[in-house]
Amino acid sequence: MFAVTILGNNSAVPAFDRHPTSQVLTTAARSFLIDCGEGTQIQLINYKVRRSRISHIFISHLHGDHYFGLIGLINSFALLGRQQDLTIVAPEALRQIIELQLKVGDTKLCFNLHFIAITQSCLLLQLPDIEVSCFRTDHRIECYGFVFTEVRNRRRLDIAKVKEHHIPVSFYDNLQRGEDYQSEDGTVIKNEWLTIAAPHPKKYAFCADTRYDERIIEHIRGADMIYHETTYHDALAEMAITRFHSTTRQAGKIAQLAGVKKLLIGHFSSKYDTLEEFESETREVFPNTDLALEGVSYLMP
Amino acid sequence: MFAVTILGNNSAVPAFDRHPTSQVLTTAARSFLIDCGEGTQIQLINYKVRRSRISHIFISHLHGDHYFGLIGLINSFALLGRQQDLTIVAPEALRQIIELQLKVGDTKLCFNLHFIAITQSCLLLQLPDIEVSCFRTDHRIECYGFVFTEVRNRRRLDIAKVKEHHIPVSFYDNLQRGEDYQSEDGTVIKNEWLTIAAPHPKKYAFCADTRYDERIIEHIRGADMIYHETTYHDALAEMAITRFHSTTRQAGKIAQLAGVKKLLIGHFSSKYDTLEEFESETREVFPNTDLALEGVSYLMP
Repeated sequence: MFAVTILGNNSAVPAFDRHPTSQVLTTAARSFLIDCGEGTQIQLINYKVRRSRISHIFISHLHGDHYFGLIGLINSFALLGRQQDLTIVAPEALRQIIELQLKVGDTKLCFNLHFIAITQSCLLLQLPDIEVSCFRTDHRIECYGFVFTEVRNRRRLDIAKVKEHHIPVSFYDNLQRGEDYQSEDGTVIKNEWLTIAAPHPKKYAFCADTRYDERIIEHIRGADMIYHETTYHDALAEMAITRFHSTTRQAGKIAQLAGVKKLLIGHFSSKYDTLEEFESETREVFPNTDLALEGVSYLMP
Repeated sequence: MFAVTILGNNSAVPAFDRHPTSQVLTTAARSFLIDCGEGTQIQLINYKVRRSRISHIFISHLHGDHYFGLIGLINSFALLGRQQDLTIVAPEALRQIIELQLKVGDTKLCFNLHFIAITQSCLLLQLPDIEVSCFRTDHRIECYGFVFTEVRNRRRLDIAKVKEHHIPVSFYDNLQRGEDYQSEDGTVIKNEWLTIAAPHPKKYAFCADTRYDERIIEHIRGADMIYHETTYHDALAEMAITRFHSTTRQAGKIAQLAGVKKLLIGHFSSKYDTLEEFESETREVFPNTDLALEGVSYLMP
């Protein structure tokens, strides 16, 4: 499983029942929360996301609509008796805000809270199943996008063939890592006769808040799916520059140049009460585009 | 008009579609927001409260369920181009949190933000129409209740009588302040022949989070309406002591001893999915009790 569930798809001011940015990336082993606008903890309840599965929370930048819900979520984790470690990955200043708010409330956490400070584009995490890196975007304040890449899966045993060739069980692990088998009489049995290639490792990129910026392409190239903001319709391209945001056609262009399979769009301005035009304008440039709709899960294609 | 609209009636963890503490006190001239849990700005939209009327926000204490929504509301005021001054009345440490969050987001406010730091029980504000004072409650961290008292209204002219006695228009203001009129020939016309007593000035007390504490009674005595927390049913009276909260019967007892006209109860624990028992238990002690229900406005009796 590798899917993204949208919890909030609106820009700064909540409107038309749309919430500020937050989404959950679900893998077989864990969930990652990406951004955490005000009310995210309620959206997690509304959409029945298992909070105990969330191991890491990634915060792209310190505009309120991307992190004001974080302290409330941490607080509720404490009140609900969470045991699992939690890691926050965010620009450094957030650590000070969290520590200050825990201190004034005399709040004791019953779980370990780790903090990874982002200071530049880099590889952030290497977990057994997934790697996460970040890249700078072009926003009014320091802001990062995140790339989540599955670690190449191990080959799967073709059990019938493995038994036919009398491969000892102790060698199964080597087979899954791609090694050939050599029997006692020196015969080599090629790995590809005994195993099946693992599925292609998926890659998802969250491009945060950003102006149109081709420098991000090297980081997201070939992704199975990216999320790119489209705060404005194409008619407001000039406002997008002033406010450090992107338009529909700009997001489509980035997806096209990066050769990604699918584009999710969101961070819709509260100027717009309906979303149809975001979809149609973006699809003119990049047909495989979907609106990021709250409560909907999008599987990697 | 002097009424309280409930925006959130739940305790710390949001549950059963109940939100953390927040309420709006509406007078003829302005609105006051009292506490501002996460999501308050959305509740203000849901219940069509005019945000531009809010002149002051009172924060009882720095547990998150009473203030985590404040920074988001301030941020949205800025994004919506608010012009009117806004005054925050709260324990001092909140100033530092707000300033830090505005700084890291590089947020410029387009309105004046004032801060009144509460450090002890005292008179906080004297406005033309209303006075506000605060009092300490018995909670795990420094916590204050608030008392809102209408300034005694001016007497109303009995126009027929005023004309009959040929009182000059220039003296009307003196009449409304209660003065007698002396005509040129020395005749005194008593004020009560010419004016009608103003309605009784109303008094509302918000008792914040607190253990059962009779010391608060001197501050809330004779109020038209008080809001007192009932986090737990009576069966959990021991837990209420440990956690610095109150039960149903305890809130009823305070209302009874203080001789108030009406009691509103809230801050319900997320342990309880329904509220009927809160109401029935409290009414056994103090019959004129109402549940504080979200979206409902309660007029002073």
